Amino acid sequence: MKTKKAVVLVSGGLDSATTLYYAKNKGLECFCLIFDYGQRHKKEIQKAIRIAKVASCSFKVVKIAFPWKGSALLDKTTRLPQGRPLKKIVKEIPSTYVPSRNIIFLSFAASYAEAIGAQEIFIGANSLDYSGYPDCRPEFFKSFQAVLKKGTKVGVQSQSIKVRTPLIQKTKVQIIRMGLKLEVPYQLTWSCYQGGKRPCGKCDSCLLRQKGFKQLGQKDPLL
Amino acid sequence: MKTKKAVVLVSGGLDSATTLYYAKNKGLECFCLIFDYGQRHKKEIQKAIRIAKVASCSFKVVKIAFPWKGSALLDKTTRLPQGRPLKKIVKEIPSTYVPSRNIIFLSFAASYAEAIGAQEIFIGANSLDYSGYPDCRPEFFKSFQAVLKKGTKVGVQSQSIKVRTPLIQKTKVQIIRMGLKLEVPYQLTWSCYQGGKRPCGKCDSCLLRQKGFKQLGQKDPLL
Repeated sequence: MKTKKAVVLVSGGLDSATTLYYAKNKGLECFCLIFDYGQRHKKEIQKAIRIAKVASCSFKVVKIAFPWKGSALLDKTTRLPQGRPLKKIVKEIPSTYVPSRNIIFLSFAASYAEAIGAQEIFIGANSLDYSGYPDCRPEFFKSFQAVLKKGTKVGVQSQSIKVRTPLIQKTKVQIIRMGLKLEVPYQLTWSCYQGGKRPCGKCDSCLLRQKGFKQLGQKDPLL
Repeated sequence: MKTKKAVVLVSGGLDSATTLYYAKNKGLECFCLIFDYGQRHKKEIQKAIRIAKVASCSFKVVKIAFPWKGSALLDKTTRLPQGRPLKKIVKEIPSTYVPSRNIIFLSFAASYAEAIGAQEIFIGANSLDYSGYPDCRPEFFKSFQAVLKKGTKVGVQSQSIKVRTPLIQKTKVQIIRMGLKLEVPYQLTWSCYQGGKRPCGKCDSCLLRQKGFKQLGQKDPLL
């Protein structure tokens, strides 16, 4: 039987790396999709490429130049939120929200999937320990699924491409526990919004990651 | 009262130019969004910019490098369909179909709209005299509307950005009739899939345009 193909969005972070290893473990041939979209630093792109290579997957980097701002992640002159209480992180949409980012990413993933004949798209979105982004919630993915059914050739003519969100209802600690079993190379991942030598430890992304490793009683290999 | 803003997708073709003038005529402040996505020729991009300027609208050009093919419009080595009977054009999805193109375009439009505070997105899609693309049909736009409600900050927090498709149920002749009333500068538009000096007259896009002008008993200013 021919191996089924899947497009996996890989950002260089912990969640997407776990998702990639999850999809590989399902026996899928994974094609990593990486975005160079003018994020604050290039480190996460390099990490994403490295993860794809270590996982022996082919990958594509899509370069997008947003000609508008509207997010602290796109605008280096904007201050990033730091030291937000965890309760606040998961409730309020912060300045790091990039308008329509996951809609754009999934659109490209759909195009890639259709071009190579992949039937699934994996994205490591999470709606529990996350930054309150609207495009990380189950209801968004459900609506996007309908778009793939109605707006693509493969969706109209045969079976629609499926969006898979294996982490959507998991806490950070559950994600890391799963990832460690799958032998995800967490030492290669990068979650911090800054591109320093070491994680800043104060941005939302660092705080959520710390929480996960701490609850599991494990040391983050990056620290 | 503050003028309402709208993002208008402008391709350089007849339909999108008509849509732009339609939106302007509604009293909206229009922000044109143009894509440089590796299409077969740059002529339509130049035309789109010219149309935006003539309409006194600001514009942004988003450059996308698709790292995969999957369409005759992206792959210059593929032969374009020529001389297809009109009945066949509107029924079969041709090789010029670009996987997820309108999904990607609308995603960027949504991002732009959210960044500038526009409440509407206009796209000149048409589901009567068109090339059979799934992402030009009303059911696709309806599904995308749900994505904007569920997956954007503005959709979640207040009123969702609306996708407007004023041409969706119009024939080419109806579109041109409307455009002539709105004084759309059709001499500046370009519909042909080829970037020659004159329209090829044989591709799907030329054939549909010819049909419209012919039925109206008008001369295409490009011919």
